[in-house]
Amino acid sequence: MAHKVSPLAPDRFPDLPPVAGVRVATANCGIRYKGRDDLMVAVLDPGTTIAGVTTRSKTCSAPVLWCREHLPKGRARALVVNSGNSNAFTGKAGRAFLDATVAGAAAAVGCRADEVFAASTGVIGQPMSPDQIARHLPAVVPAAAPGRFDAAAKAIMTTDTYPKGAVATATVGGKAVTVVGIAKGSGMIAPDMATMLAFVFTDAAVAAPHLQDLVSRGTRKSFNAVTVDGDTSTSDTLLVCATGKAGNATIARASDPGARAFAKALDAVLLDLALQIVKDGEGAQKMVTIDVTGAVSARSAHRIGMAIANSPLVKTAIAGEDANWGRIVMAVGKSGEPAERDLLAVSVGGVVIAADGGAVEGYDETPVVAHMKGRDIRVAVDLGMGKGKARVWTCDLTHAYIDINGSYRS
Amino acid sequence: MAHKVSPLAPDRFPDLPPVAGVRVATANCGIRYKGRDDLMVAVLDPGTTIAGVTTRSKTCSAPVLWCREHLPKGRARALVVNSGNSNAFTGKAGRAFLDATVAGAAAAVGCRADEVFAASTGVIGQPMSPDQIARHLPAVVPAAAPGRFDAAAKAIMTTDTYPKGAVATATVGGKAVTVVGIAKGSGMIAPDMATMLAFVFTDAAVAAPHLQDLVSRGTRKSFNAVTVDGDTSTSDTLLVCATGKAGNATIARASDPGARAFAKALDAVLLDLALQIVKDGEGAQKMVTIDVTGAVSARSAHRIGMAIANSPLVKTAIAGEDANWGRIVMAVGKSGEPAERDLLAVSVGGVVIAADGGAVEGYDETPVVAHMKGRDIRVAVDLGMGKGKARVWTCDLTHAYIDINGSYRS
Repeated sequence: MAHKVSPLAPDRFPDLPPVAGVRVATANCGIRYKGRDDLMVAVLDPGTTIAGVTTRSKTCSAPVLWCREHLPKGRARALVVNSGNSNAFTGKAGRAFLDATVAGAAAAVGCRADEVFAASTGVIGQPMSPDQIARHLPAVVPAAAPGRFDAAAKAIMTTDTYPKGAVATATVGGKAVTVVGIAKGSGMIAPDMATMLAFVFTDAAVAAPHLQDLVSRGTRKSFNAVTVDGDTSTSDTLLVCATGKAGNATIARASDPGARAFAKALDAVLLDLALQIVKDGEGAQKMVTIDVTGAVSARSAHRIGMAIANSPLVKTAIAGEDANWGRIVMAVGKSGEPAERDLLAVSVGGVVIAADGGAVEGYDETPVVAHMKGRDIRVAVDLGMGKGKARVWTCDLTHAYIDINGSYRS
Repeated sequence: MAHKVSPLAPDRFPDLPPVAGVRVATANCGIRYKGRDDLMVAVLDPGTTIAGVTTRSKTCSAPVLWCREHLPKGRARALVVNSGNSNAFTGKAGRAFLDATVAGAAAAVGCRADEVFAASTGVIGQPMSPDQIARHLPAVVPAAAPGRFDAAAKAIMTTDTYPKGAVATATVGGKAVTVVGIAKGSGMIAPDMATMLAFVFTDAAVAAPHLQDLVSRGTRKSFNAVTVDGDTSTSDTLLVCATGKAGNATIARASDPGARAFAKALDAVLLDLALQIVKDGEGAQKMVTIDVTGAVSARSAHRIGMAIANSPLVKTAIAGEDANWGRIVMAVGKSGEPAERDLLAVSVGGVVIAADGGAVEGYDETPVVAHMKGRDIRVAVDLGMGKGKARVWTCDLTHAYIDINGSYRS
C-alpha cells in the first residue's frame, strides 16, 4: 500500500451512481490494515439474480469453493468481501471462518446462507478466527446505504495503487438500466476464467441462466484476456448481481428486447475493469495492447497473444523502450501454436517492422522509437495463416515489480 | 558481456581433456563482438556418429532446421558454431548464410555438406552476409587442434558470465572412454526438448540410433528440467558426437557391455551443463532445486515443478529471501495438474512449513530463515496423491534480470 499510484491510473475514480436494490457498507475488522476499511458488504433486495465465474486454480480459496457450490442457484441477498487475508490454503479453520461469516450475514440480512456470497483477497495461508468478520456484521449490515461504491472499491484493495470502478447504461425495453462495477487486482494476475475480484451490480431484470451466459462470454474478452505476471490467483472471483429494480421485462434470452443493449453495457463494464487492473499491474509503467490476427483459430490467436504478453523478455524490452521484435517472434514460437516464419508480420505502433521472414529493410524507426517512449504500447502480430484473431493486454516488467514482490511477505 | 560473473559460478573452468578424434579451432569473424572469438569449429574424424535434439519453437533458426534435417543420418565430420547472431528470423538471407557456411566447412574439411552441423546464438533477426564465416574457414579449419575446449566454450558465449564445461569418464568393454561437453546459455532459457547450445564429445563408439535414444532420454532430466525465465529460445540445440576412437566394441543397444556406464557418464555431463546454465541465469543470485513428489504421474510432477519454477512471484520471493509458501501453493494451483489442497505439503530447506491444508502451527522458522539467506535453495512439494515425481531447477528473479533485458537491444 506504500507504493506510488500507477502512472497509468485514470485521472480520478468515476462517478458511480447508486443502483436500485443495492446497499453498501464498509468497515475495518482489523484483519491486516490499520486506518482503512477491509470489509465490504453489499445487501441486495429480494429477487436479485446472480451469476459469476471463479478461478480454475486447483488450490482455490474457501470462498471460491463456496461460490462455485451456490452460484448455480442464481439467487443472492448479500456479498461479503474482505481484504488482507485471502482465506486460501487455510484448511478447516478457513472453512469455519467462512461458515461463521456467511451465517452471520444471513442472520443480519434475514436470508438463507446460500444467498450470501463471499470473497477474500490478501495473504495466502493465514488462518483467521472464525468470528473475525462475523462479530462486526450485526452493526455493519444495518448501516448499508445506496451508492457508496467508491468506499467499497477502496475496502477491497490490497497491493492496488488506486480503486477501480466502471459504469455503463443501456435502454432495455424502454427502461433505463445501469451497470456499475468495482474490482481489485494488481499482481498475481493471469485470470483463468475469472478475475482477481470484481463485483458488478445492475438494476436490470435478468434471469440467472442468461446472466451466467453473458458473464461467461464477456469474461473471455475482458478478464481472461489480461495478464500482469502469468500467475493465476487462488481467489479470482467475478460476481454480477441483477436486482431487477429498473422495471424492465426480465431478459431471459439473447432475443429478448434490450438483451443486446444490456450485454453491450455489461461487456463495457467488464472490459473497463479488466483494463484498470492491467493499468495497476505491479510496477507497470506502460500499458501494452497486443493484437493477433491471421491465426488458424481465435483460440490459437489468444494463446499466441498470451505467450507474448507473459514473456518476461518481451516485457522487460518494453520497459526498456526497445521495439525488440526478435523477442516477439521468440514468444510466438514458444506458444506451440501453428506459425510459419515466412508468413509472420510484426508491427509496433502501427509500423510493420518485420515481415516475409525477416526485418523490413529500411523501415522508418523514428515513429517506432517515439511510440516506445509513450505509455500506451501497441503490438500487432499477423500470422498470415487464417482468420483467427484475438486482443490481449498486459503491462511492462520493471524494477518496481521486483521491489514489490521481493520484499518480505507482501 | 559487461555483467559481473554470477555469484553461483563454479570456482574455475574444469580441466577438459582432449577427446581422441576431435580437433577444435576458434576465431573472431567480426560478427558482433570485439576482442574475443565468436566462432568455434570442431573437426571430427571419419566414423563419428552424432545425435541431438533441437528446440520445438515454431519460429526456430535456420541452423536448427538444418540440424533437424540431417541428424537422422547420424554421421558428422564438423560442427560450426557462432555467437553474436542467432540467424533466426532472417529469411532467405539466413538460409544463404547457412548454405555458404556449411559448404565452406565441407570444402575445408573434405566431407559432404550433410556431415556438417551448424548452430548460431545471439541477436534474432539480423541478416549476415553469406560469407561472414565462410571466408574464414580455409584458415580456421587447418588450425584445429586436440583439446582447446576452454576456448570453444568461451567463443560460444553471449550474455553468459562464465564459460561452461563438464567431463565424465566411464569404462566400456574394458576401455576407458571420456565424455566432454560445453554449453552456453543465460537468458531465454526454458528449453523445450533441447537446450540453448550444448555440444558433447566422446571417444566412445556408439551407434547413432542408440546415441539418439540416450540423448533424448538424458535431456528430459537435464536440459528440459531447467528454466531461467520460461522463454524458449529459437536456437536451442544439443549435439552429441561419438568418434569411436576409444576402441570399445560399438554400443548399439542398452544391453551391450558398458552401455550403462556410458549412459551414466553422458547423463552426468548433460546435467552438469544444464545446472551451469541455471547458475548463470540472467541476474541469478540463488540456485533453486524443486522436488515434486506424490503427483499422479511423473509428467504431472514435472509440470507442477515447472509451474513453480516459472512463477515470477515465487522467484521474486526467493530473491527477497522470503519462504513464501503461499505463492508455491498458488503455482501448484495454476499448473492445472491434479492437486488436493488438504493433501499438499510444502517444505523449504527440509522443514515442512505447510501441510494438511494449512500452515504447520509453530514450525521452527529459524532454520528456514537461515536457509533462505543461502545460495542453494531447496523447495519440496508433496501432492499426496500418487507416485509421480520430478526434480527441476531454476534461479531467482532479481533486479539484474531487468537491468540485463531492459537495456536497449541486448
